[in-house]
Amino acid sequence: MKFDDAAAAIVAAGQRMDAMGWVPATAGNISVRESSGRIAITRSGCHKGQLTPAEVMRVDGDGASLEPGARPSYETLLHCGIYRRFPDAGAVVHGHSVANTVLSRRAGDEIRLSGYELLKAFPGGPTHETETAVPVLDNDQDIPRLQRMLDALWDRTPDAPPGYLIRGHGVYVWGKDMGHAVARLEALEFMLLCHLEEGRNAR
Amino acid sequence: MKFDDAAAAIVAAGQRMDAMGWVPATAGNISVRESSGRIAITRSGCHKGQLTPAEVMRVDGDGASLEPGARPSYETLLHCGIYRRFPDAGAVVHGHSVANTVLSRRAGDEIRLSGYELLKAFPGGPTHETETAVPVLDNDQDIPRLQRMLDALWDRTPDAPPGYLIRGHGVYVWGKDMGHAVARLEALEFMLLCHLEEGRNAR
Amino acid sequence: MKFDDAAAAIVAAGQRMDAMGWVPATAGNISVRESSGRIAITRSGCHKGQLTPAEVMRVDGDGASLEPGARPSYETLLHCGIYRRFPDAGAVVHGHSVANTVLSRRAGDEIRLSGYELLKAFPGGPTHETETAVPVLDNDQDIPRLQRMLDALWDRTPDAPPGYLIRGHGVYVWGKDMGHAVARLEALEFMLLCHLEEGRNAR
Amino acid sequence: MKFDDAAAAIVAAGQRMDAMGWVPATAGNISVRESSGRIAITRSGCHKGQLTPAEVMRVDGDGASLEPGARPSYETLLHCGIYRRFPDAGAVVHGHSVANTVLSRRAGDEIRLSGYELLKAFPGGPTHETETAVPVLDNDQDIPRLQRMLDALWDRTPDAPPGYLIRGHGVYVWGKDMGHAVARLEALEFMLLCHLEEGRNAR
Repeated sequence: MKFDDAAAAIVAAGQRMDAMGWVPATAGNISVRESSGRIAITRSGCHKGQLTPAEVMRVDGDGASLEPGARPSYETLLHCGIYRRFPDAGAVVHGHSVANTVLSRRAGDEIRLSGYELLKAFPGGPTHETETAVPVLDNDQDIPRLQRMLDALWDRTPDAPPGYLIRGHGVYVWGKDMGHAVARLEALEFMLLCHLEEGRNAR
Repeated sequence: MKFDDAAAAIVAAGQRMDAMGWVPATAGNISVRESSGRIAITRSGCHKGQLTPAEVMRVDGDGASLEPGARPSYETLLHCGIYRRFPDAGAVVHGHSVANTVLSRRAGDEIRLSGYELLKAFPGGPTHETETAVPVLDNDQDIPRLQRMLDALWDRTPDAPPGYLIRGHGVYVWGKDMGHAVARLEALEFMLLCHLEEGRNAR
Repeated sequence: MKFDDAAAAIVAAGQRMDAMGWVPATAGNISVRESSGRIAITRSGCHKGQLTPAEVMRVDGDGASLEPGARPSYETLLHCGIYRRFPDAGAVVHGHSVANTVLSRRAGDEIRLSGYELLKAFPGGPTHETETAVPVLDNDQDIPRLQRMLDALWDRTPDAPPGYLIRGHGVYVWGKDMGHAVARLEALEFMLLCHLEEGRNAR
Repeated sequence: MKFDDAAAAIVAAGQRMDAMGWVPATAGNISVRESSGRIAITRSGCHKGQLTPAEVMRVDGDGASLEPGARPSYETLLHCGIYRRFPDAGAVVHGHSVANTVLSRRAGDEIRLSGYELLKAFPGGPTHETETAVPVLDNDQDIPRLQRMLDALWDRTPDAPPGYLIRGHGVYVWGKDMGHAVARLEALEFMLLCHLEEGRNAR
């Protein structure tokens, strides 16, 4: 994966996420790990539905800008934290949906999903008879501290799913490439919508 | 109906189902019975909103791949089961919506729909004064066993509607051609959305 | 307004209504009164999101087909009933939304809407401080009988708004031309969505 | 910013707002302050999803038409009131969503939003740990009187956010340019959707 391809994949993912309503205002950010190990990621403050390749920049594995004067997305360190921990991760997407926002504000430290065929989009074997506990972390403007919480969480639960929620602040999901990352995001958001609906009072 | 036409109809149906939000991630599958009796069906693992004709393959009436090395969609045998039982079926669509997922998880062995003008999209005469009981089956990763359950159901209820739900795993609907199959899917999903709304507590 | 222009307006309205989710399956129908007094209307059984001008046909003021062998939409007589009663009506749209279906099934013989700025899209003066009572009629497959119910209703309430609901069977709205008819439909559907939301239990 | 650019920005914002469902019928209006101090604003009665540059006109800072015979949008004086009070405001958007309509009808004189990451789209520092109180005013067809209410409100609360709701009549939001105004609108509408969902009874 070279930069031009990475930027094209990021632009396409941004358009898709915008069409789904998951990147309101300038929310969300999207990245791809290039074969060189460098990370292509959306710049700070741009609208993901109107991305251009020029709004994608490069950082190194620690999140330092490789483009003089260019500021990467505010949460770049969370992307780096995922790539550092998970060698197979090739793309990371972060978005805000109504479902993930409302459920994360209401949840404790995880949201349990079970019985959905779409759980097959997550690791754990080809069956719906599993349960996935998606971690929910408190929001924190101190991103390095938030990343330390995540590293501690992953130390404790090595089989955590390839995604997590930040309270009131959206979801992070990753996969081996952008196609897999976006498919997992779609599967997770779909299950969260179902979970939200099931939480409403019903006759 | 030849393969090229079948593939084009499948691609168009995939785009429509994606626009409606019914094929998240790589969920869903779509098929057409060609005049030769062979079945054109989506390959396993592709996104239905971005289908290309190259992602449509052929199987025989028993679901065996007619393309060496190509793997058909995981649930091909359910498509074959419909074509075997219903000689008039020319196209089958399978999708996951929030409504069909939540309602099927909440339901017993059927969902009863009555009083909707859109019931006219289903067999039973030109009136809304009918009631349709859409079967709901438990999900099962053993597809041949699931198909045996369906065959037993159709033996017991020969006037079952041209569709069924699998719990937590979407809906199957069919028609004489893709236009009719998709129209029936749209009618059913619309009525399920209404049914879901009516199940919410209201003043 | 000539036939070609009428057909183009009908096709555009069908695409808009489909994008809003108001014409699932082959539901809905759309017409324009030409300056000759003839009515251009969608044929029976076509999908309104994929309309072509060839799927628009002509009937006379009594709903009789002016094209040998062509069958107009099943509910053509309801369009004719509107044009006969309201000389200023130039276009009629009929669609099924989840909101109008669920609310009409739950309602008595009217739905009262008040306090919405969008009420200004309906006759009654430039203020939101009015109340509109949208009639709701029982569904009936006997269309002439349904039209007689409407005529009796309009005799009793000469200031009825330019629209009505049929229980479980959508809404009819009209205006002096297609732009006004569709704008009124959008205003009404928006207020019905708000009304539906307000009927849900809330903290 | 010259008129052609202003008109293009207004047309694009109209298409976006229409795609989000925030400008049903002919609701909503959109303006840009040109560098000359004149205001480019949508004409009265046009559909914001189908805007053309010809439907954008100019008024002076007091809302008087600069085009003989052309009538500006009914609520032009509210746009002027924003530009007069806030020298940094370069664009104003007004739309009706289901969320802002229902919540404003239910609210007292403000809606309090807290804990959302998207609050960062509003002034107040780079943190989610703030609370924003969005003012809600009673609807009034006497626009100068409504503007006097707003001026009194802004006198009392100089740190009011760059937006307000009118009961049953939508939201006004502004920013230094159209990109910022629309981004703030998207952020606010997203948080209102979450707020609406959280107000529904839940298990």
